[in-house]
Amino acid sequence: MVARQPEGSAGADAAFMQRAIALAERSPWPDPNPRVGCVIVDAAGTVVGEGWHEGAGTPHAEAAALALAGNLARGGTAYVSLEPCAHTGRTGPCADALVAAGVSRVVFAQTDPNGVAAGGADVLRASGVEVEAGLLAGEAAAINARWARTVALGRPLVTWKFAATLDGRSAAADGSSQWITGEEARRDVHDLRATRDAIVAGTGTVLTDDPRLTVRREPDRMPLGRLPETAPLRVVVGLRDVPATARVHTGPGGVVHLRTRDPQVVLDTLWERGVRDVWLEGGPTLAAAFLSAGLVDEVVAYLAPALLGAGPAAVGDLGITSMDAIRRLEVTDVTRVGGDIRVQAVPASVAGKE
Amino acid sequence: MVARQPEGSAGADAAFMQRAIALAERSPWPDPNPRVGCVIVDAAGTVVGEGWHEGAGTPHAEAAALALAGNLARGGTAYVSLEPCAHTGRTGPCADALVAAGVSRVVFAQTDPNGVAAGGADVLRASGVEVEAGLLAGEAAAINARWARTVALGRPLVTWKFAATLDGRSAAADGSSQWITGEEARRDVHDLRATRDAIVAGTGTVLTDDPRLTVRREPDRMPLGRLPETAPLRVVVGLRDVPATARVHTGPGGVVHLRTRDPQVVLDTLWERGVRDVWLEGGPTLAAAFLSAGLVDEVVAYLAPALLGAGPAAVGDLGITSMDAIRRLEVTDVTRVGGDIRVQAVPASVAGKE
Repeated sequence: MVARQPEGSAGADAAFMQRAIALAERSPWPDPNPRVGCVIVDAAGTVVGEGWHEGAGTPHAEAAALALAGNLARGGTAYVSLEPCAHTGRTGPCADALVAAGVSRVVFAQTDPNGVAAGGADVLRASGVEVEAGLLAGEAAAINARWARTVALGRPLVTWKFAATLDGRSAAADGSSQWITGEEARRDVHDLRATRDAIVAGTGTVLTDDPRLTVRREPDRMPLGRLPETAPLRVVVGLRDVPATARVHTGPGGVVHLRTRDPQVVLDTLWERGVRDVWLEGGPTLAAAFLSAGLVDEVVAYLAPALLGAGPAAVGDLGITSMDAIRRLEVTDVTRVGGDIRVQAVPASVAGKE
Repeated sequence: MVARQPEGSAGADAAFMQRAIALAERSPWPDPNPRVGCVIVDAAGTVVGEGWHEGAGTPHAEAAALALAGNLARGGTAYVSLEPCAHTGRTGPCADALVAAGVSRVVFAQTDPNGVAAGGADVLRASGVEVEAGLLAGEAAAINARWARTVALGRPLVTWKFAATLDGRSAAADGSSQWITGEEARRDVHDLRATRDAIVAGTGTVLTDDPRLTVRREPDRMPLGRLPETAPLRVVVGLRDVPATARVHTGPGGVVHLRTRDPQVVLDTLWERGVRDVWLEGGPTLAAAFLSAGLVDEVVAYLAPALLGAGPAAVGDLGITSMDAIRRLEVTDVTRVGGDIRVQAVPASVAGKE
């Protein structure tokens, strides 16, 4: 016999799941783990525990909520924004923890797309827990869209940023490039750098422009969602030596010099270090290498209304000789930032897939 | 003793002047002459004649309105959007015609900024006609802003149009450029070409791309204000020969080949031919010559979200070697046109002056 559910339970389920998703939004991104929230409700419909994942190496959302609920979880329902894991990583499997706590029903939104950790629903059902999947799955998936793409690609996402004049020059003929864009555009770059976990530049750029590659933001700038608490890793790529006096060695954030020209090696190395969302800043050689390898997921172009008539372009040779091979993008946003124009675009091959 | 004016005459004056300005908007642009409208009202306040200027070589607005009014103009008021001329050109001076018609009062909006034709107000006053200047002068001036700039500069206005990828390439490495931008952007170009009276390209572009330089618009496209009735003059600039088989020799509109590299000579020659608003389309050499000479008043850039990595830029060498000499523009409009982005900008030196 199926237990009769109290009237309005569907509405109550949705409300608790909304809360779980709202909690999930407190989880950090970028992070190797998905953003997850959990609400535990006792048989009488009272919330007895809440939790969210604070990032890799910290307890999962379910564990955090169960810790708060204690014995009150027994016989209750757990609302989780993502399918509970069935996998032992740095923490034990959440499915087992829910069973051990005596939860009698688990409602989750998104099914775990991560092959390694999936299977939690089966574990729960095998232990006699009632399981409902898919409630508000779209909303839950939306807050993990970037995470899901990294899982699918098996590498960090790459956003290539450049600044250029209207005639496509990223520096004057003598190599000087400070400043092509205005102050507001440069502030905007710092805002966006802050949402990534690594900032990558080639040795050419580091030797020519001597950038710090740090996030410098005024305290009164609005935060962009939940920002990583640690400064982005600064990554210099290329075979040339970088002097110890380079400014990249100053300021917050780790620095790593990867002595390779292979973007895939760069991304593999960063993936192993837990990097999931890379901000790629010049120069033309490194940008061309990433673009040619199909390893750019998004382009952010700051276009200054100015003309130089000569000087290096933002991207070097892509091996394209005729219009047939042109690399098409799709514009996702155009915004005026101060006196400049910010264009965001994604490769046309990617555009249809999100 | 000053004649007592009927109550509400100020409101009536403004209403008649609004009408005169509305008539002026029927005048064509580009044209060597300003856009002018005229309303003639008898002593009882009844409109007895209206007219507007149909373009160089046709009667002025005042003459057209007086012709309709005939004897009814005697003792009446003429409302003119621009100071009546005191100058004999292809037609006689309007100030004299108003006096001869027995008009007793003339109200005009904008004072004629054209030294040659100005002075009408003095002629009228000397003949005993009551004159009021400046009513709705700002509105009247607005519809002649481009004309006033040509008068002040003593040359046609120049709008430089180019298309490029996001990395600043106007063609692929092999010179192919069809099509960098999409169909909607190309249609937009035809809409804007239609608002100019000459389309200029260098021999390089004509020999490489074999453009027609005509206006091709579908009949259902909305007209952009009052369009010139004749097709824009097609102007090829440069020392090289253009074969008789070139497509520029087909389709509507005159064709002239100016065998010079000097933009000032080009503009002087076009000015003499009555051209006032030039649409400059490539190539990089000609664009660089106009820009270097300070002879570009507006830039219209169609930016395609695409990357080429190599290939010619939209503009050639401007003699700029370092950031100090960068040519700054000011963005006046950014619009997405189909999948592309249209950026309109004016030289920063001009931006503050309009």
